[in-house]
Amino acid sequence: MRLTDDIALAQRLADAAGAAIRPHFRTALESDRKGDASPVTIADREAEQAMRAILAAERPGDGIIGEEFGSERAGASRQWVLDPIDGTAGFLAGRAIFGTLIALMVDGWPLIGVIDQPIAGERWVGGSGLPTLLNGAPVRCRPCARLDEATLATTGPHYFDDHDGEHFMALAAQTDHKRMVMGGDCYNYAMLASGHLDIVAEAGLKLYDYAALIPVVEGAGGMMTDWNGDPLNADSDGHVLAVGDSARLEDVIEALACDH
Amino acid sequence: MRLTDDIALAQRLADAAGAAIRPHFRTALESDRKGDASPVTIADREAEQAMRAILAAERPGDGIIGEEFGSERAGASRQWVLDPIDGTAGFLAGRAIFGTLIALMVDGWPLIGVIDQPIAGERWVGGSGLPTLLNGAPVRCRPCARLDEATLATTGPHYFDDHDGEHFMALAAQTDHKRMVMGGDCYNYAMLASGHLDIVAEAGLKLYDYAALIPVVEGAGGMMTDWNGDPLNADSDGHVLAVGDSARLEDVIEALACDH
Repeated sequence: MRLTDDIALAQRLADAAGAAIRPHFRTALESDRKGDASPVTIADREAEQAMRAILAAERPGDGIIGEEFGSERAGASRQWVLDPIDGTAGFLAGRAIFGTLIALMVDGWPLIGVIDQPIAGERWVGGSGLPTLLNGAPVRCRPCARLDEATLATTGPHYFDDHDGEHFMALAAQTDHKRMVMGGDCYNYAMLASGHLDIVAEAGLKLYDYAALIPVVEGAGGMMTDWNGDPLNADSDGHVLAVGDSARLEDVIEALACDH
Repeated sequence: MRLTDDIALAQRLADAAGAAIRPHFRTALESDRKGDASPVTIADREAEQAMRAILAAERPGDGIIGEEFGSERAGASRQWVLDPIDGTAGFLAGRAIFGTLIALMVDGWPLIGVIDQPIAGERWVGGSGLPTLLNGAPVRCRPCARLDEATLATTGPHYFDDHDGEHFMALAAQTDHKRMVMGGDCYNYAMLASGHLDIVAEAGLKLYDYAALIPVVEGAGGMMTDWNGDPLNADSDGHVLAVGDSARLEDVIEALACDH
């Protein structure tokens, strides 16, 4: 019951974020060229403010961890984890494959995850014990019988340090690398949940980058771990892995050959 | 007059390709897992056949250079250059940022170019001496005052050999690499024409990958050359460069530091 209410609230947060973001898509934002090198846009800040205003009104006791405006009530057991625009570089490049990420973590466990694409009008909603829905219809990860038939995705090698890059390349070499795709940010995990990709591997992610992905991927039958195969939590080191077919997890971990 | 007729025809080709492609997007295509490693799909072949059927009826004397079914009437001065799905890996990954590419070359010169995105319903049309239109409205490349403020895009480093990769990285290091985006295929050139990206650099392209891009980019005020700054033609070596602000071309060529 409470989960249903919280999912409905998460959807209202996504609605509000989308309304804040859409007017800024493909407009000439000068954003922060001269200041912070990170591509933080007006849309990013307005969307997070819109979500925080709803949470302040409807869940005043819950904590918030947001990409733009930091943490509130860090000691609360319920934490809303917000990334208004995951994939800001892609957003600035005019691609409608960025996403708003919303998670509810309870006692450190992500119970709800939303990946919302407000331009294309696509929303993936995952909830603990529930099937992942894309615009209300269930989606499933696809089977992948062999690693060399797997399609791998990552946002870009420029997000890896040299060490990460070597491990990633070792994995890529064992997959169907002709089908490998770059770019995409959170959208890759949504496509994995919808059965169009088999593996996503990334490094350098923060909690607000991956918390929402976990319920979406797991509710579609996939698995998410770090690069050692260990479960993700708030203290993970930012090396994130998603596999659509859990039977391939061991092969992927072995191919990555990490022990850090 | 003839140009107008040919542009109208190019749009009908794009309509036909889109109608052939849309039913296959995000369906479970087994395509060619066991055969040709290139991700050639049913959609790719049906779209090219649909375009060839129209050309056979309406321009029986014109030549055709197609990605899927090769050349016809190679000696004709007028050549239609067709790539039904540019960005097949992105298409298979469920991303609506692939494109159908259609060019008309006359005596080796691309007079008309179309980049069509049939899922999002976006069509860029360029014609010699005409402003580039996105769904009928003019678009322009944006100014870029300094190379270190430029956003660079490329489909992925896995399309470069080691040599290409070194030159690309030398360029990337001089741009605003925090905003660099990977993936995107032809869509990057469309976004450059619409003023959302400053530089696109790729290697290994075939004529059908780049012929249509030239009228689109140039009609929006940008420039396309090879990595040495030389004009592209049917004999180019597949190293393709687009810059939105032609005042930056020299900086880009210098940063790439090629002499192959």
